Amino acid sequence: MKTSEDALIQKFRRAQAGDARRQLQLGMGDDAALFITKRGYETILTCDWFLEGTHFLRDRHPADSIGWKCLARAVSDVAAMGGEPRCFLLSVALPESCIGKWLDEFLSGLRRAARRFGCALAGGDTTRRRDVLINVTAVGEVRAGRGVLRSGARPGDALFVTGRLGEAQRGLQLIRQAKGRLRKNHPLLKKHLYPEPRLALGQWLSEARLASAMMDLSDGLSSDLPRLCAASKVGAKIEAARIPTLAPERGGDPLELALNGGDDYELLFTVRRDKVGDVPRSFQGVPLAKIGTIIDGRSLQLMLPDGREETLVAGGWDPFRAT
Amino acid sequence: MKTSEDALIQKFRRAQAGDARRQLQLGMGDDAALFITKRGYETILTCDWFLEGTHFLRDRHPADSIGWKCLARAVSDVAAMGGEPRCFLLSVALPESCIGKWLDEFLSGLRRAARRFGCALAGGDTTRRRDVLINVTAVGEVRAGRGVLRSGARPGDALFVTGRLGEAQRGLQLIRQAKGRLRKNHPLLKKHLYPEPRLALGQWLSEARLASAMMDLSDGLSSDLPRLCAASKVGAKIEAARIPTLAPERGGDPLELALNGGDDYELLFTVRRDKVGDVPRSFQGVPLAKIGTIIDGRSLQLMLPDGREETLVAGGWDPFRAT
Repeated sequence: MKTSEDALIQKFRRAQAGDARRQLQLGMGDDAALFITKRGYETILTCDWFLEGTHFLRDRHPADSIGWKCLARAVSDVAAMGGEPRCFLLSVALPESCIGKWLDEFLSGLRRAARRFGCALAGGDTTRRRDVLINVTAVGEVRAGRGVLRSGARPGDALFVTGRLGEAQRGLQLIRQAKGRLRKNHPLLKKHLYPEPRLALGQWLSEARLASAMMDLSDGLSSDLPRLCAASKVGAKIEAARIPTLAPERGGDPLELALNGGDDYELLFTVRRDKVGDVPRSFQGVPLAKIGTIIDGRSLQLMLPDGREETLVAGGWDPFRAT
Repeated sequence: MKTSEDALIQKFRRAQAGDARRQLQLGMGDDAALFITKRGYETILTCDWFLEGTHFLRDRHPADSIGWKCLARAVSDVAAMGGEPRCFLLSVALPESCIGKWLDEFLSGLRRAARRFGCALAGGDTTRRRDVLINVTAVGEVRAGRGVLRSGARPGDALFVTGRLGEAQRGLQLIRQAKGRLRKNHPLLKKHLYPEPRLALGQWLSEARLASAMMDLSDGLSSDLPRLCAASKVGAKIEAARIPTLAPERGGDPLELALNGGDDYELLFTVRRDKVGDVPRSFQGVPLAKIGTIIDGRSLQLMLPDGREETLVAGGWDPFRAT
């Protein structure tokens, strides 16, 4: 099948129908998109790679999950600022052989995600390539001055995480081990294939001025916590027993998965000591757990269930450390 | 050499110094960037692939040209809306072997371009990959309602192009044929390696309300003109003799290069009949040429120098037609 770039853009444009298009003056098909920010708001900008072989396996991951997840990953960064997603740009490079069924399924997952997150496809770029390459730029908004940064944590702040850590990594393990077809609605696979960015929670933490610092967990707690601490110039002490892990019967090493598993897209945030009581145990069904405390200095300590203390070692996913 | 992703981000962050950072509340190092749009302005959003093997050859193109051009290409779309660039997001995937000298040169070209275009590096994403993959999202601004779209051309409008068409393609031919080292300041190579988006001109055409429709020429006139006409639901008639081509002694077929050569990043725009007299012959040294007229219907006609008329056939660069 031969397709021109223009025909392909038409296909993407059709996938746009039904999206939340408020504020979008001009969408696909021109040189650029035009977007109007609400008065009193700042624009959030973030982009994310999603590459075959690096971030997903074309023969293992369903195309509609690739469509969903490429947007969910980018939108999760908007959640981590306490913002609301508005629109996104999609850059896709793909082989000729993917232009039929694969692309239709990809677009169906993408459209579902765009609706769920209230984020309209505003434009993008397409080209041909042997491997499927995806880059998503997500654009969001947050009330001016209310964006929650990584740099706001202070000694004495309590450290929280949302959800259960390590589920997505366990899902990936199952996908790698699987012989036959996968049940996409298996709860562990769902977290890996169709992650739900914590948008409502992130916005609430920002609006209620509860979070002093926040980020999303994409590379694993042991890699991401050091980033929050470095940005805030502080250290942290966390208790393994308090980390919400998988039940042991789910397989794998629950603590190792929780510390080093990537792709969870849960939120990691800090709260001033005097506001800790205002943090509920769960928010719209998502559990919130206090896992430790921000400390003076720059050390990162992990207290094990047996009382021993060790230094937290970054063992999460880093593409430049992978070999 | 082993590098962590965080160390690499530091390297990019250092390359940021000296950039135009007005309006940027928060740059690299957090989950996302925060950007404040000026009141009464709309935000322009555009993204572009720049991929090894597809858009450049790592063994032929100097790394600093790759840094310059990846931003120039994206910023050219901002110029084509009549806007002013503000900031950009940079996604780079690259092999370990590129992290030293190659990356330094790439960042030096990128920094030069960022200064020239007044466009600050606001964030991005890095990962490792066998080939160098680049995606740039450029963010600009234009006074509300003044963005010049592709869809505003009407029958009777005059059709203009800036600069000389086909130079960049001829530069690419010379690079492909070259045996030894290239003289980067050779005028034809310069256009191919370090294109200058027509920012001042685009802004002026928007502010002066001269352009009724506009786009940039990235894939060649014969591919891009049909896009402008399709968006405006009109046809066009152009005269080969009026198209600003290369002098024949530069080699290649000047008309073929001008019609089908890509990467020129000149502007193609239309002007209402009664305003044609207001268009100068050149603007800040860039020549402006009237090459034809917008017509009723959807046909695209090319009048040859000998008076024969033929249908314009899209022969420009289309990644999905390339084989």
